[in-house]
Amino acid sequence: MSRTEPFDAPAVIAAKRDHHRLDDDQIDWVVDAYTRGVVAPEQMSALAMAILLNGMDRREIARWTAAMIASGERMDFAGIDRPTADKHSTGGVGDKITLPLAPLVAACGVAVPQLSGRGLGHTGGTLDKLESIRGWRADLTNAEMLAQLQDVGAVVCAAGSGLAPADKKLYALRDVTGTVEAIPLIASSIMSKKIAEGTGALVLDVKVGSGAFMKSEEHARELAEVMVDLGNDAGVTTVALLTDMSTPLGLTAGNALEVRESVEVLAGGGPPDVVELTLALAREMLAAAGREDVDPAAALADGRAMDTWRRMVSAQDGDPDADLPLARETHVVPAPATGVLARLDAMPVGVAAWRLGAGRSGPGEAVQAGAGVQMHAKPGDRVRAGDPLLTLHTDTPERFPRALAALEGAFEVGDAVTAVPDVLIGRVG
Amino acid sequence: MSRTEPFDAPAVIAAKRDHHRLDDDQIDWVVDAYTRGVVAPEQMSALAMAILLNGMDRREIARWTAAMIASGERMDFAGIDRPTADKHSTGGVGDKITLPLAPLVAACGVAVPQLSGRGLGHTGGTLDKLESIRGWRADLTNAEMLAQLQDVGAVVCAAGSGLAPADKKLYALRDVTGTVEAIPLIASSIMSKKIAEGTGALVLDVKVGSGAFMKSEEHARELAEVMVDLGNDAGVTTVALLTDMSTPLGLTAGNALEVRESVEVLAGGGPPDVVELTLALAREMLAAAGREDVDPAAALADGRAMDTWRRMVSAQDGDPDADLPLARETHVVPAPATGVLARLDAMPVGVAAWRLGAGRSGPGEAVQAGAGVQMHAKPGDRVRAGDPLLTLHTDTPERFPRALAALEGAFEVGDAVTAVPDVLIGRVG
Repeated sequence: MSRTEPFDAPAVIAAKRDHHRLDDDQIDWVVDAYTRGVVAPEQMSALAMAILLNGMDRREIARWTAAMIASGERMDFAGIDRPTADKHSTGGVGDKITLPLAPLVAACGVAVPQLSGRGLGHTGGTLDKLESIRGWRADLTNAEMLAQLQDVGAVVCAAGSGLAPADKKLYALRDVTGTVEAIPLIASSIMSKKIAEGTGALVLDVKVGSGAFMKSEEHARELAEVMVDLGNDAGVTTVALLTDMSTPLGLTAGNALEVRESVEVLAGGGPPDVVELTLALAREMLAAAGREDVDPAAALADGRAMDTWRRMVSAQDGDPDADLPLARETHVVPAPATGVLARLDAMPVGVAAWRLGAGRSGPGEAVQAGAGVQMHAKPGDRVRAGDPLLTLHTDTPERFPRALAALEGAFEVGDAVTAVPDVLIGRVG
Repeated sequence: MSRTEPFDAPAVIAAKRDHHRLDDDQIDWVVDAYTRGVVAPEQMSALAMAILLNGMDRREIARWTAAMIASGERMDFAGIDRPTADKHSTGGVGDKITLPLAPLVAACGVAVPQLSGRGLGHTGGTLDKLESIRGWRADLTNAEMLAQLQDVGAVVCAAGSGLAPADKKLYALRDVTGTVEAIPLIASSIMSKKIAEGTGALVLDVKVGSGAFMKSEEHARELAEVMVDLGNDAGVTTVALLTDMSTPLGLTAGNALEVRESVEVLAGGGPPDVVELTLALAREMLAAAGREDVDPAAALADGRAMDTWRRMVSAQDGDPDADLPLARETHVVPAPATGVLARLDAMPVGVAAWRLGAGRSGPGEAVQAGAGVQMHAKPGDRVRAGDPLLTLHTDTPERFPRALAALEGAFEVGDAVTAVPDVLIGRVG
């Protein structure tokens, strides 16, 4: 133990290991000392595993979140003339909802500051998707971001490194040490960035099912409750929807493929589940921002949302009229029988899209704009033997075999549908 | 995951995190890959915490031990003309038993190869104690060690770095990450070195009580059972004694102080608990080596053990006739009342000796030969108010206040003794 540090790391680790609660001073110190490099990575990873296995109570989680916020800067949207609302999804396959949702809510008079990340693994990244639009750029200065929020009402851009740097460092560590799946650490990671960002209201889309981090409704509800409490206690009006991620959202998983589907939704079409979830989240965001009087369905139907989309893309140098990239090669997977599609699992579709080039396996890797999986039916739809069920897209056809291997056993055609899950499962807050 | 490695570390960590058993290939790989530096410290510490909290079954522990043995060289005592027996203590305050025990067992015709370590924290190190003898050296070559084992029959020296290097690296990591106290990791750490050392028989002294790693008899017994099984399965005849460590062993804790007490035992005197435990362990070592016919009490009484001690010290360039170092300063703690000493706790005495300079707080620190705590009474003894109860020894009197602080509440004088624990608690094997 250094004589100038108030605690020593093995003692803090041992406390959590032995099922004690960490007190405020210990949490403040360990998060700060880890950020400073005084607590070593091997010490923080042991603590993260102890937190994963032994848990943290609400007070510990709140303090941990506050310590991560205190590690960096805080933004402030007080200069914007409208209320602000943000949305965060815990990540799922085909989850392109941010793309139609941000301009839709902005078109209804609530500003949407959406600081986003890139994809890692089988879930796609919102920035990767938007970068398939010619010219669009993710990196804005704080001044550009604020100006666009005021002018257009919606901005989707890369989160600066100044928000919760402790989280950035801790997340990279958790990713390689098997400690991602801890509810206290997931909740504090998400909420530290959203609270530091300065949004006035926040709607959480907590995914449940085989394609999500949270496989059971029970765990998803626990995560949602922890995050809703963290947000409200920090002065951010926060609610959460629990939504299905046993099957992909919509009919596409990929970058340009998902932008195309999002534009269809903004044009008044698109898959019913994507429309339903977009409208449900929009209503929650408007209500949380004090505008429950506004009907987002009208803004979608009359073209105001599409208009805001075009202005939002253009403001970041994107060309909303440019053709979206298409992959060079496609491969069709036919339906194996005639009947009803009983099941189409999210995780294998996400893995297939990733292996086709839509995602990355390490930070900094390039992604293919055109790669991904296009679905021609959803669970409950009738299919005919030999008709296309899935189309795989990639620029690099040597990727087809591993993508097809991922899809082994991923779908099932039966005589009658068993139970097709609703996209909306529950609400917390 | 590197394409040349058969597993990836996060998946192995996640398996143990999720309460699965690790299979043989995973264990072989993770121990080897950690030794090679492919598995990072932050990954191994997360795995160690998962093992600590979720456990390992006997087969996993055996495989883990074998993997650590396979990381280095193995020694072989086949050239020695007698059976061999070693002893290992899990560590306690005032535990100088190796000093009289090794020459005693050697005097009875069983060779004792005792590869030892240095002290860290509140438990002393056998090598530190012997180094208080003028000229004595701990570092021997393998050839010197084997020659002394053949000629004298007993050798206490530093373990070379070639035995179980994986354990050396893992122990250093566990020490700073709060993962020392895992029974599978303690057992495999101890047994990998003892099996690699090549002893034919092994007696384990598993300490129980407030001054030991294992605070409860239940945990100590579990650790003993795991180690006894590991040893016997590897062809080493292994038994364990569970012994008390609620109060210090004997009347001294320190380096030269403990050598002096050990010589008293070899001369036929010394504190009864030290004599009792030395003889009990000697009988177990002789029996495990097939010499249950020999009575160690006779070898202690007739001076053969003392003779072997003198030859053992001389063989390592120590002068058995040299005066042992005395600390420059002493401070007496008097008995606070007249009555019976009801309690004298091991841990605070160990911490006090450490703070007086007998131990080190980091690897490589020098220790004071004369420093330590001398006790003038044991639990159950009558004491008179104002008479000396403890004498603290140090070369650096500025250390007295912190040593005295450690002793706050460490002892109690009552009207009648409550229950003085026996030194021998149980036996496994």
